Amino acid sequence: MRYHVVDRDLRGLPPREQWCPICKLQHGLAIFSGCNLSHCRHIQEKLNGISLKSVREFLTREEDSIVFSLIERAKYPYNAPVYDPSYLGFTFHNHSLIELFVRETEALQAKAGRYQNPEEVPFFPEDLILPLVPPYKYPQELHPVAASVNVSTTIWHMYFDRVLPQFTSKGNDGKYAQTAEADLICLQALSRRIHYGRFVAEVKFRAAPKDYITAIKAKDSDGLMRLLTSASQEEIVKRRVEEKAKVFGQDVTLDTKGETTSNHSKYKVDPMVVYSLYSDWVIPLTKLVEVEYLLHRLD
Amino acid sequence: MRYHVVDRDLRGLPPREQWCPICKLQHGLAIFSGCNLSHCRHIQEKLNGISLKSVREFLTREEDSIVFSLIERAKYPYNAPVYDPSYLGFTFHNHSLIELFVRETEALQAKAGRYQNPEEVPFFPEDLILPLVPPYKYPQELHPVAASVNVSTTIWHMYFDRVLPQFTSKGNDGKYAQTAEADLICLQALSRRIHYGRFVAEVKFRAAPKDYITAIKAKDSDGLMRLLTSASQEEIVKRRVEEKAKVFGQDVTLDTKGETTSNHSKYKVDPMVVYSLYSDWVIPLTKLVEVEYLLHRLD
Repeated sequence: MRYHVVDRDLRGLPPREQWCPICKLQHGLAIFSGCNLSHCRHIQEKLNGISLKSVREFLTREEDSIVFSLIERAKYPYNAPVYDPSYLGFTFHNHSLIELFVRETEALQAKAGRYQNPEEVPFFPEDLILPLVPPYKYPQELHPVAASVNVSTTIWHMYFDRVLPQFTSKGNDGKYAQTAEADLICLQALSRRIHYGRFVAEVKFRAAPKDYITAIKAKDSDGLMRLLTSASQEEIVKRRVEEKAKVFGQDVTLDTKGETTSNHSKYKVDPMVVYSLYSDWVIPLTKLVEVEYLLHRLD
Repeated sequence: MRYHVVDRDLRGLPPREQWCPICKLQHGLAIFSGCNLSHCRHIQEKLNGISLKSVREFLTREEDSIVFSLIERAKYPYNAPVYDPSYLGFTFHNHSLIELFVRETEALQAKAGRYQNPEEVPFFPEDLILPLVPPYKYPQELHPVAASVNVSTTIWHMYFDRVLPQFTSKGNDGKYAQTAEADLICLQALSRRIHYGRFVAEVKFRAAPKDYITAIKAKDSDGLMRLLTSASQEEIVKRRVEEKAKVFGQDVTLDTKGETTSNHSKYKVDPMVVYSLYSDWVIPLTKLVEVEYLLHRLD
């Protein structure tokens, strides 16, 4: 059966001519012997499903999604009625429009199988409906006991109380459904990024279990936080998202001759807000998820 | 009462010191006399609600939304089961997952008042639920009889049959709910842009009614199409969206020194696909909406 495992997992690898000679030889042997090609890093990464490289690529790509989602939310003014529990009144138990909107959209997306995917974490898990779609066999990379780490409530309050007022203009244009939809896309992107800390922690643990086991057994949160922290790498991430806010939030225009001109003085979302969002919330919350995950990694 | 109308509509105008002297004088008079300040173009535009300038700004901003939405959809492979009517089987009357997803999401968003806004046109109007939110008084800019022009079915087939396969990779990653959500965002952005042709036509008609009335009375679609067409302006739009696909679809990275470097050789969505989307579909369909709207503008 190892033959099938190896064969399936080789899909998506670099072309065979790019492999090292030992790999090429070993792959031939692997088909017959069940060898796991463990000396070759790119093959090993694929066999493991996640790797430091794939995790980093995921987080980098999510930055684009987060910046796009903020820019799209900034199309609309703040639109206070969306968040005002008195707006819909007693009929809806004083729930705000945004809360009802997110609850019902999550229930609908659960039917389509969204939360079968371990990367996705709902804000209102109690309302979810069983999927109508056949189950999909996602790779199970996370340690089951630790996978339930959840900071959704913190993300919710961070987004609505602290972040949203910073990048929306004051005002009310009546486009409440569009506003709620744009908020949901921001929330989903932020939640996916922050809860991906579980995968980050898993891949770091697998790479150097000995480094972590002592701190995990001692329930040493501070020690784990130190192990997980790289200030220089975090600074690169913060500066990169600031740069993305500039690049994606500029007005791209053509002059009368058809030449590209860009308005670099005015951005749709203040790049410093995006820098601070990552500095104050996204990176610290991701690391919090990582630490919480690791504390249960040996349970 | 004219006082209140003028006063309300002056919000958002340029600062008073930028007005011409006659405007400044007239505004003082207007408060007492009900003068509509009609000689001053920027004030007149505001009083009318839409203007050539505001329509152009809307369409330009929608380009960003369309390009973002395509880039976000391209995160996922094609994911054929989403579109396969046999995937969910007989229980769902052989509807595809995407059709059920869009129908139910539109119903949910209708409850939140999305389709009270005349800019928004649903794909499945027969399934809509009455809004739970109090009515919002949107400006009624469109001629009521002409406002019902609708090319949603054409947009649906254009997107799924012609455009989607061009910018998604082959494959299946199981993220069907995320895929359907990303498709819906693309569809909504394309529909809003194309159906905005009604506002484009209205503002062009108001600017020069005499030019259009003869052709409208003669039901001369070709003549109207000629009046509405500016090949040079269309070429600028097509080149601008191509440029936006390059700017928004690049990999923004920082090198080890923290300097910005961008990968210009590889884009998340092929800029030529976006150029062709506008050239072959978005611009022609918008103009079709404009012509159909004008044909009923005098009804």
